[in-house]
Amino acid sequence: MSQQSHDSVAAVKEFIASYIAEQCRKALAIDPRYGDLWQSIQRLLSVGGKYIRPSIVCMTAAAYRDDIDSRDIVPIAASTELLHAAMLVHDDIIDRDDVRYGVKNVSGQYVDTYTSLSDDRTHARHLASSAAIMAGDALLSAAYQVIHYSSIDPATRAEAARLMADTVFHVVGGELLDTETSLRGRDSASPLLIAEHKTSRYSFCLPLLLGAAIGGAPAADRRLLEEIGIEMGVMFQLRDDELGVFGDTIQTGKPNDSDLREGKWTYMVEQFYELATPELVAQFEQAFSNRKASARAVAKSRRALEQSGAREAVRNEIDRRMTLATRRIAELSWNDASRKELQDLLLRCTTRHS
Amino acid sequence: MSQQSHDSVAAVKEFIASYIAEQCRKALAIDPRYGDLWQSIQRLLSVGGKYIRPSIVCMTAAAYRDDIDSRDIVPIAASTELLHAAMLVHDDIIDRDDVRYGVKNVSGQYVDTYTSLSDDRTHARHLASSAAIMAGDALLSAAYQVIHYSSIDPATRAEAARLMADTVFHVVGGELLDTETSLRGRDSASPLLIAEHKTSRYSFCLPLLLGAAIGGAPAADRRLLEEIGIEMGVMFQLRDDELGVFGDTIQTGKPNDSDLREGKWTYMVEQFYELATPELVAQFEQAFSNRKASARAVAKSRRALEQSGAREAVRNEIDRRMTLATRRIAELSWNDASRKELQDLLLRCTTRHS
Repeated sequence: MSQQSHDSVAAVKEFIASYIAEQCRKALAIDPRYGDLWQSIQRLLSVGGKYIRPSIVCMTAAAYRDDIDSRDIVPIAASTELLHAAMLVHDDIIDRDDVRYGVKNVSGQYVDTYTSLSDDRTHARHLASSAAIMAGDALLSAAYQVIHYSSIDPATRAEAARLMADTVFHVVGGELLDTETSLRGRDSASPLLIAEHKTSRYSFCLPLLLGAAIGGAPAADRRLLEEIGIEMGVMFQLRDDELGVFGDTIQTGKPNDSDLREGKWTYMVEQFYELATPELVAQFEQAFSNRKASARAVAKSRRALEQSGAREAVRNEIDRRMTLATRRIAELSWNDASRKELQDLLLRCTTRHS
Repeated sequence: MSQQSHDSVAAVKEFIASYIAEQCRKALAIDPRYGDLWQSIQRLLSVGGKYIRPSIVCMTAAAYRDDIDSRDIVPIAASTELLHAAMLVHDDIIDRDDVRYGVKNVSGQYVDTYTSLSDDRTHARHLASSAAIMAGDALLSAAYQVIHYSSIDPATRAEAARLMADTVFHVVGGELLDTETSLRGRDSASPLLIAEHKTSRYSFCLPLLLGAAIGGAPAADRRLLEEIGIEMGVMFQLRDDELGVFGDTIQTGKPNDSDLREGKWTYMVEQFYELATPELVAQFEQAFSNRKASARAVAKSRRALEQSGAREAVRNEIDRRMTLATRRIAELSWNDASRKELQDLLLRCTTRHS
């Protein structure tokens, strides 16, 4: 990350911290319990987040203009992080997760509070999910709100809001398809289609296009950036799936057996069933979708993925998309230094170890 | 409703119908199952809604300018109805309701779909709630999006978005306090405080202030309209609570015993416990919070509310607020015809029978 990007990310962090503190104060003035809701958001946001999305906004805008006032860009960059937080809070309800970034998420914090107040655990959990639904709504609304904390001209702010709305439209679609896989079966939606809508659109396309809007990019660049964003997101997801099975648990900080044991339906697994012999399938299924599988069975599944050529298929798919994205980066109107920064980001998405 | 308001409401309905149809088409192009989600929203919105909020937006703006282009105002008026829909969809998850406007709501429709796909009813219900969380997110985002379908200047659109964000902030607070009453007990939050944040802010203040922004109202008027909106919403809620117990079921179309049987904690009930003798309390509690109470016990509870003076206290509170709001209406810079229209709306809120 360049020094400039580094400074911008620090400014975005500070902006979000002060925005959330302001909401905490305003909520507390209404009622202490409403103050608690914003504090649960504050606790969550103070821990996690790599601020990748805001840094992409800043990097992209800087490729067009080096004189952007931080008061113009910081709130809009921050909006991507608030949208991300909103989606995480709702996603965690859907996935029934109580932990995020290694700490209790909003519903997790409320489960603790509410179970201390009620003997009816089911009721307490339902109300905790309800609190998290509201927290997510507040954050989604906040994402739209902070756009207007920017001092940039109102027309660009309107453009930013439109881009955000397009993004939410795609993310909801991707999330729905992802959720329905558990009911409709594995073939109901392609993992790449889900990645395009769930990951690419809001983690990559949105920040790239916001940066382009702030920088005043020509229309041709915007089309290229959208394409690049889609490829980046899908590659990011493909690498994520690979690390979920083959990753070094020390480097990633995540287990590398749970995706297999939980039967996570990824592009790699889809490819496996295309390519594998019946023997390899039998070997794979000793651990796949089997929560009680032994470590030995998991290791065998992993080998089956390698031997079938599924892992290689993932690498090939990443390479194919990398070539495509690289070609599009070359077509941008950017100077070489900016182009290199974007290319580096692309590489980090696909070769990262954590 | 004036002819002008009537026309505006028809235009808002048409705008929303065509916006939702557009989203259905776009979602379908991503995946048929995503098309289904938008169709479930479409089914819900095609049935219900009195469009009170959009009509307030139009009425208020017309008090300032009689030359407003419908392309300027209709999308912004529509945004209040989409916000309302978003809140209803999430509210119904929280209240575990599957029906709205007499038809299946989003989660209700998805419970049907998913239970036909899975034997695990708990899982199916969880996924149905998940689909409804996403539908609500899509609608909340849509509320912000359609603001920018307006052809009004971007600065006014930005102002509209800011007003919407303020509103969501209050509504989330009100909803949280309301939800927590079931855990923290009756005295945890005043019903009037909840009404102010949950009902007034988004059903009255927001439409009044949006109309003021579109009409270019002076700052003094905006402050008055905010106050009027708060009073209107609280009065609306007080009348709602009264109808919930004393209403004519044929006129309201709703039962008049369930609020009592379910132990709904309203301002009237709060006043009852302030005012009632121990004998009246005993009489009241034969039906209050007792789902199996007989019709006779319910009738006795109702009489206890009358005899204690609680019903009168509600009427007095409505009168007190009516006087306040009427005084504020007189201070507005409006002409007599517009003033009368707003005063009529106020009256309808508090004397309605349905």
